[in-house]
Amino acid sequence: MTIAQTGEFGLIARVTARLGTPAGCLLGPGDDAAVMAAPDGRVVVATDVLVEGRHFRRDWSSARDVGHRAAAANLADIAAMGATGTALLVALCAPPELEVAWAEELADGLAAEAGVVGAGVVGGDMSASPTLTVAVTALGDLGGRPPVRRDGARPGDVVAIAGRIGYAAAGYTVLSRGFRSPKLLVEAYRRPVVPYAAGPQAARLGATAMIDVSDGLVADLGHVAAASGVRIDLRRDALEVPDTLRDTAAAFAVDPYAWILAGGEDHALVATFPAGVALPEQWRVIGRVTDGSGVTVDGEPYRGRPGWEHFR
Amino acid sequence: MTIAQTGEFGLIARVTARLGTPAGCLLGPGDDAAVMAAPDGRVVVATDVLVEGRHFRRDWSSARDVGHRAAAANLADIAAMGATGTALLVALCAPPELEVAWAEELADGLAAEAGVVGAGVVGGDMSASPTLTVAVTALGDLGGRPPVRRDGARPGDVVAIAGRIGYAAAGYTVLSRGFRSPKLLVEAYRRPVVPYAAGPQAARLGATAMIDVSDGLVADLGHVAAASGVRIDLRRDALEVPDTLRDTAAAFAVDPYAWILAGGEDHALVATFPAGVALPEQWRVIGRVTDGSGVTVDGEPYRGRPGWEHFR
Repeated sequence: MTIAQTGEFGLIARVTARLGTPAGCLLGPGDDAAVMAAPDGRVVVATDVLVEGRHFRRDWSSARDVGHRAAAANLADIAAMGATGTALLVALCAPPELEVAWAEELADGLAAEAGVVGAGVVGGDMSASPTLTVAVTALGDLGGRPPVRRDGARPGDVVAIAGRIGYAAAGYTVLSRGFRSPKLLVEAYRRPVVPYAAGPQAARLGATAMIDVSDGLVADLGHVAAASGVRIDLRRDALEVPDTLRDTAAAFAVDPYAWILAGGEDHALVATFPAGVALPEQWRVIGRVTDGSGVTVDGEPYRGRPGWEHFR
Repeated sequence: MTIAQTGEFGLIARVTARLGTPAGCLLGPGDDAAVMAAPDGRVVVATDVLVEGRHFRRDWSSARDVGHRAAAANLADIAAMGATGTALLVALCAPPELEVAWAEELADGLAAEAGVVGAGVVGGDMSASPTLTVAVTALGDLGGRPPVRRDGARPGDVVAIAGRIGYAAAGYTVLSRGFRSPKLLVEAYRRPVVPYAAGPQAARLGATAMIDVSDGLVADLGHVAAASGVRIDLRRDALEVPDTLRDTAAAFAVDPYAWILAGGEDHALVATFPAGVALPEQWRVIGRVTDGSGVTVDGEPYRGRPGWEHFR
């Protein structure tokens, strides 16, 4: 059955029937707007859009995968402020011939990923469009803490990362060369594993700046360096190259550091901390903050493509 | 200059430079997420997407018009809960050949419409896409009042409307027949004039249910009737037909009541109130709530198309 056959309201009814109600949701889908509790007296909010052919391909990712990724991209932005995601709103633009099952499984993926942090889908919109597009907005709660911004890194801070980097980019390379394995990397591309809890944890540890790695480590740290007016120097020997990445890079004749330094979409969290802060194991120190500007690797400018930019 | 020439980050910088900071915005664009104050301890949130060719045409509406309409559609949803809009987030999907000026003027329109209620654009995302798409999320504040839902209408209530109906539909008809006037109607289609303040006002007056007329009066009141388990009966003689609508309908051989009863996109607010509530002049009584189901006009089922539905 296609969404043209169910119609907008039929599709909305079918999708919302699959959604639970997250904690803090005072009024869910079905009215003009949703109402969420904001006990902190502030709300953190971010929006991120996925466009077919640009951010996903239906022959590479299931609808459920796309739901997971769309939710993860947004909830990682919330985590990168030191906050916990509470709710998602989803605008789906789809060709009328889209199967209803695709939209339902998208909703399942969104709800499942949101459920990892205790959030849920509380509202949305649907429209016909020639281009399949999923626009997600995430809300989050700071739990009384100040937000961790991009502009607080100071010379002397250490740079540390939580989560995987390079996996999604490697998975993308694997898929784009026509392969479906190693499964670990392909799955990492399809459904990023985001260390959500590390965001509020970093805030509690006194992180001075934080960002999620969505465009690439060098590119995203470049935003922190620019906003903070500092230089960030990464240590190559601190950037571990897991065996799977090393083996796959060799098989495809790729430098694995291109994936690690410039590959985005794993949504790792990278933060700066005052020197001397005892970091839990989840956080690996990969560099330090100095006077200057830009991002360097072992003191040298990175010569590869720093990351992903749209419109080019 | 096109957005492919500025790139994603160049475009974001140009657009955000044009935006002010609304009241309650603790952290605006430029970080992973925005932070808004939510002094009420709750936040109202809605999302609404506009797709080129479906919701707007660039030869009918300027970028600024599209910005006004996208903001109005979302802020009207917030008003229909009895809340006041505080912030917008905007995801723009656009072909790389889009002129930067179009994106800038879209932002100007969004910010200007948001400014009507004291809100502003606090964040967003941009992506390349073959289909020009504007997905907006609005946040709002209830000011300590309970939200006015769709399911509270009770037999004996009166039905009242604030704002214009039929104007945008008439403007759409005028444009689709190749005309550019009457200007009043064409402008009403391009930039709806939403009675935002009537939303919180209705909440203070004890409105039992409220919705904004986005799909058509009969269709939208149908949602209220279904959610509340009541029948809503409209009085045709209470639905004024302004001279411009009457004259234009005659010129195009259209029944003006088709515009008034089934035309959406004016984003009037329609609410139910306990009988006996003294309504300010802005609210015109147009019917009453009875036992039963559905929406009737002078006691008879409405035989026209009730409103607009997507995907068909």
